[in-house]
Amino acid sequence: MARLNSFHLPAQSWPSGVGEMLRFTGAEVRHMLTVLRTEPERTVRLFDGQGRTGLFRVRETDRNSALLEALSFAVHPAPEVGVTLAIGWGKSKHRDYLFEKMVELHGLGAAFWPAVRSQGKMPDEAKETWREKCLQAAKQCGNPYLPELSVLPGGLNDLIAFASGFDACYLAWENDGVERPLGPADLARGKSLVVIGPEGGLDDGEAQALMQGGFTPVTLGQSILRWETAATYCLGLGWYARQGVK
Amino acid sequence: MARLNSFHLPAQSWPSGVGEMLRFTGAEVRHMLTVLRTEPERTVRLFDGQGRTGLFRVRETDRNSALLEALSFAVHPAPEVGVTLAIGWGKSKHRDYLFEKMVELHGLGAAFWPAVRSQGKMPDEAKETWREKCLQAAKQCGNPYLPELSVLPGGLNDLIAFASGFDACYLAWENDGVERPLGPADLARGKSLVVIGPEGGLDDGEAQALMQGGFTPVTLGQSILRWETAATYCLGLGWYARQGVK
Repeated sequence: MARLNSFHLPAQSWPSGVGEMLRFTGAEVRHMLTVLRTEPERTVRLFDGQGRTGLFRVRETDRNSALLEALSFAVHPAPEVGVTLAIGWGKSKHRDYLFEKMVELHGLGAAFWPAVRSQGKMPDEAKETWREKCLQAAKQCGNPYLPELSVLPGGLNDLIAFASGFDACYLAWENDGVERPLGPADLARGKSLVVIGPEGGLDDGEAQALMQGGFTPVTLGQSILRWETAATYCLGLGWYARQGVK
Repeated sequence: MARLNSFHLPAQSWPSGVGEMLRFTGAEVRHMLTVLRTEPERTVRLFDGQGRTGLFRVRETDRNSALLEALSFAVHPAPEVGVTLAIGWGKSKHRDYLFEKMVELHGLGAAFWPAVRSQGKMPDEAKETWREKCLQAAKQCGNPYLPELSVLPGGLNDLIAFASGFDACYLAWENDGVERPLGPADLARGKSLVVIGPEGGLDDGEAQALMQGGFTPVTLGQSILRWETAATYCLGLGWYARQGVK
């Protein structure tokens, strides 16, 4: 089967059953009609980013909307294993790239926090443009789950509180005293949180506070990784860890 | 010790011994003097990209050059374990990004080849701008080895011949019949070559020819990865595999 074009339909807008009709509107339908030139009788894939996907047939189109018939629904079980990253804030042109890689490698989420060496002002909440980037990546790679994005304005205290929701918490700390490498086995059970410092790394006091807060210090190896390389590397280890998980 | 600024000095320009003076010129010295404003008596780190590094003291500077005294040299053993990628050519804005990640994660090299689904014209040889990107990344992350970059204009035949130089050869192929995940253990011994298709993936005939040529088909998991995500993921598995290698 040729790959179907995917579009996002928020969870609250889904029809309740197969055979029902849906009037599809908004930015996604403009993409469907004007960029992809989707015509009546074509089948498309919709997803809600929370594990539900559906096949729909295009019945009618006009300038700004499409009438879709629900053909079949599928619900993908929520991942029981996966990695969330807590990333020290920075002013980086590579943030969008990270969101893309996170969705492709099925990361569960990213939380940004203000670190001692953070540069630039962190926004008060996760930005809509970040979610949009994730959504575009999900359309491309087929991941039925969008990652949870958040900011932790309270810094270390918020981060330690946030960590209580995870089965295992790691601190990627480039320090000569840290010799334990983070590996797939560390990320193979339950939900893991990995703290990544901002560009420039963690401050010693910060690292000490996180270790006292229960985070296990780990090394990502003897190379000075940019923050987004460190992040993608951790997501990759987590993705590898999930290859054996059915 | 505060991190020293690093500059590239090609292998043929190195002084023969400690205590000797070097007249440092060219683009790197302009960066040293005008961007980093390095002054006399500062210590800098030079590297040749082939495993040699040295500490030098700045003795004099003028507009276009610096006189450096060699303080100490170190030779880093050539890596015996590592990953080279053979990447199907594509017209991608993400190529520079891949070079950066390759240097940070100590990949040994990249060879581009024209695949059935390649788009855009592949250059006749590895571009100087690619090496420059690797060099800038090496200055940042401290990797004493620059990756080997090449192009394989003869396509599959060249790729199969190129593979003879490696201890293990894998083919990352997204096909329902391929269930063996590529993992760190596959990349933990000797030099490995991993073929990554172009954006759009490998053609079936191409994959069959490579398997007949001795490549082991592997999956990178059930997600449609962009080429540079697939590449960075493989480099990450190889970097993890090296964490136990002393």
